[in-house]
Amino acid sequence: MKQQLDTVLDCRCFAGRQKVYEHDSNVLNFRMRFGVYIPDNLEGPAPVLYHLSGMSCSEQTFIQRSGFQRWAAHYGIIVVSPDVCPRVTFAAEKNEIEAKGLSFYVNAVKKPWNRNYQMYSYINEELPNIIQEHFNINKERQSIMGHSMGGHGALISALKNPGKYRSVSLFAPVCNPSQTPKILEVFKFYFGDDMKTIEEWDATCLVAKYKGPELNILIHQGTNDQYKSDLKLENLINACEKAGVSVSVNTPEGYDHGHYFISSFVEQHFHHHSQFLCDS
Amino acid sequence: MKQQLDTVLDCRCFAGRQKVYEHDSNVLNFRMRFGVYIPDNLEGPAPVLYHLSGMSCSEQTFIQRSGFQRWAAHYGIIVVSPDVCPRVTFAAEKNEIEAKGLSFYVNAVKKPWNRNYQMYSYINEELPNIIQEHFNINKERQSIMGHSMGGHGALISALKNPGKYRSVSLFAPVCNPSQTPKILEVFKFYFGDDMKTIEEWDATCLVAKYKGPELNILIHQGTNDQYKSDLKLENLINACEKAGVSVSVNTPEGYDHGHYFISSFVEQHFHHHSQFLCDS
Repeated sequence: MKQQLDTVLDCRCFAGRQKVYEHDSNVLNFRMRFGVYIPDNLEGPAPVLYHLSGMSCSEQTFIQRSGFQRWAAHYGIIVVSPDVCPRVTFAAEKNEIEAKGLSFYVNAVKKPWNRNYQMYSYINEELPNIIQEHFNINKERQSIMGHSMGGHGALISALKNPGKYRSVSLFAPVCNPSQTPKILEVFKFYFGDDMKTIEEWDATCLVAKYKGPELNILIHQGTNDQYKSDLKLENLINACEKAGVSVSVNTPEGYDHGHYFISSFVEQHFHHHSQFLCDS
Repeated sequence: MKQQLDTVLDCRCFAGRQKVYEHDSNVLNFRMRFGVYIPDNLEGPAPVLYHLSGMSCSEQTFIQRSGFQRWAAHYGIIVVSPDVCPRVTFAAEKNEIEAKGLSFYVNAVKKPWNRNYQMYSYINEELPNIIQEHFNINKERQSIMGHSMGGHGALISALKNPGKYRSVSLFAPVCNPSQTPKILEVFKFYFGDDMKTIEEWDATCLVAKYKGPELNILIHQGTNDQYKSDLKLENLINACEKAGVSVSVNTPEGYDHGHYFISSFVEQHFHHHSQFLCDS
């Protein structure tokens, strides 16, 4: 039986419609929202691109602030932009509150997080199934992108599912949580102290073991990124070099970590994905 | 002596910088914010375009949600986007609260509004003087645009200052406040009950008396605009026809009153202004 989707927004934007839906997620045990942009005049099953946002964002951020709809309409790509985590309220010890409202798009194993914080399975299984049920998409043509924490989510999704995504693009991604004290602290709430387990959810560690088709990764990180030291892009680049995984890295002068940076380069990211998702 | 501007934001965006400043306004007796976008590589004094936002907006709305910076950079136009009203707190009778946080970009005459609600003078005198003092602009090349309530502000600014603005563009503008009960009620708080005074601040009434150079007005209003009946576009068009004021009106199918609508047509509006502001 089809999952029920309740419409939150359905609004004309460029040559298409920006929609937001709400639904009960079985994987997350929670009610979730996601955006879907549907270009006009799609001919048959369309390619689909998932966008994962960063911390402090919601399903509204990318759809309101990036201007991506211009390029999704231009290339004929359906774009799905989920919320970043279940907005669950539960009693947590004071210091655990740091881990709430994030998610890093992993599947938590420790209580109380494991009941709702299963974003990896939501992004890679439940949500794509819902999208396939409700929209006319070509499930052979999927790609994924993300910003900051969502960049990490996009990377681990691609690395753990060889061949599932045709291309990957990242704005200022978190690259190496196990080597970033502030983020490692959050991962310990989700996974406990076992570093082996944590490394299975760390993009830079996963790259070393990657075996699969070309990932077609595009990265932008501005030279004025205020979180640069926590992102550890250099660790990812080194791991990619060692593993023979090719990655296209751009460090445009003067841009920071925020949404003005994303809007400035979203055209290039859609152009990148279109090369792998669309017939020329 | 130059007015002091305090920097709130200074951020790279497309090929330029998006800035927000805060300053003491003498005309408004209040501290105000405005955005300024400065494209790279301007050659000498640059043309300037003022954007007035609608109700419930601030100086952040247009700069975050429209994606205009792409086109400002492309054409080499400095864009100034002030807040919509002074954020003043004062004791007002309960029903007067309806008039707070709006402004319609008029100069109020009634107490307590008249002390701070002088947005017309702020937009047309104080702010342009500040912009000229601090930025390398060509004061012979100014245009104005606006959305909803801000569309009304842009219209009355152009109509009351023949020749000051080279072109005008409007997204779903409020056109005829004196004939719109909900808005007339607000105007009565600012002006009292004298309809003669109110009509001096009503764009459709002002068009009838306009004598001056071509206004070069471009208007977009979506067919699904949820406030259509309060905007009274047809009254403005009729008044323009009678007065021989030419106006280019577009009613794109299915778009509503919101920011997705603006982002969809901001390119066309910048193209319009560039024809009057920029050398070809």
